[in-house]
Amino acid sequence: MKRGLFITFEGADGCGKTTQIKLLQEYLQYRGYEVVLTREPGCAGLGQKIRDLLLNYDGEVSPVCESFLFLADRAQNVDVIVKRNVDLGRIVISDRHTDSSLAYQGYGRELDVEKIDMLNNIATSGLKPDLTFVFDIDVETSMERIGKEKDRMESSGKEFFERVRQGYLKIAQKEPNRIKVINAVDSVENIHSKVVNLFVELEEKLLK
Amino acid sequence: MKRGLFITFEGADGCGKTTQIKLLQEYLQYRGYEVVLTREPGCAGLGQKIRDLLLNYDGEVSPVCESFLFLADRAQNVDVIVKRNVDLGRIVISDRHTDSSLAYQGYGRELDVEKIDMLNNIATSGLKPDLTFVFDIDVETSMERIGKEKDRMESSGKEFFERVRQGYLKIAQKEPNRIKVINAVDSVENIHSKVVNLFVELEEKLLK
Repeated sequence: MKRGLFITFEGADGCGKTTQIKLLQEYLQYRGYEVVLTREPGCAGLGQKIRDLLLNYDGEVSPVCESFLFLADRAQNVDVIVKRNVDLGRIVISDRHTDSSLAYQGYGRELDVEKIDMLNNIATSGLKPDLTFVFDIDVETSMERIGKEKDRMESSGKEFFERVRQGYLKIAQKEPNRIKVINAVDSVENIHSKVVNLFVELEEKLLK
Repeated sequence: MKRGLFITFEGADGCGKTTQIKLLQEYLQYRGYEVVLTREPGCAGLGQKIRDLLLNYDGEVSPVCESFLFLADRAQNVDVIVKRNVDLGRIVISDRHTDSSLAYQGYGRELDVEKIDMLNNIATSGLKPDLTFVFDIDVETSMERIGKEKDRMESSGKEFFERVRQGYLKIAQKEPNRIKVINAVDSVENIHSKVVNLFVELEEKLLK
């Protein structure tokens, strides 16, 4: 493979993305690929500084400002990390990318999905992932996994995360070739083999 | 006046904006107005942190990332500083705002002016300044004022700043009611009285 690949992992916190990214990385390295891991927000360098602002700034943050900070981090990730490494034949795996904004801001916060799509396109200069895994998990299980007690879960919070979940499924329906939905309540081993099978499918398609 | 006013100052570095902002502030305070000064990039709080990234980050910054950081700062400025203070009846003066992006990125760097306009509109939620002063100055004089020696000025650099200057003039032609072009090579006193006269003109229009 001359050009590398760009793979993204999406889904709610607690869906098991991090574990599966590490397992896929090990598999790919075993297969002889060079793998680069990145994430949004918070790619190396400037992205880490933007992530700090997004997560740790303790004053007021305007929602529009926050959206632009996410986009700034995304543009930096794509330009400085993703494109260059893919051009060098490496496989870049990003923990969250454009679909997170669509699912969380668009469907979750019910903002204008088309506008977010348009802004995503500016941030990525139109680059799309070659393969995206959406880890689908019911809201209660994901909440349990990240340590939130069920009775403390506000109903509005639950509704938000339900909209995010349904949003991810809608996004996946629109691009079935790129986006693969995986049941994240399955065992780590089963999920890993599904991920590997889907990767191999893509690999074979590209080799043809 | 129940609602306040939003006034922006635009023009090349070295055009004398800062001096004139202070003089206008003193005049307005003498007239009994409450005045709030802000700037882009670098409004209070989060904006200051974004400004630090824009001016002091020593690693590589993707141009698209940089544009989004400017927009993030602008959104924060508008939402947290400008709108609230104008709603409280104050006069907010911003050192640079949307027209800087149009002039520098759009005309100077020759990027898509309509796209920048669209992004500006998202960042400001459509809020426009009530009055904008464009301080027009020839490139050589502004360079001399900020301490760049004439012989060290690269011709491409000079062409860039010439495009920025002409860009400001084009923007002003499109919105003659909002944007007033002032010859910045005039004396401090003359410029100040022009600024005051234009403010009073607007004030009278609003009182009618």
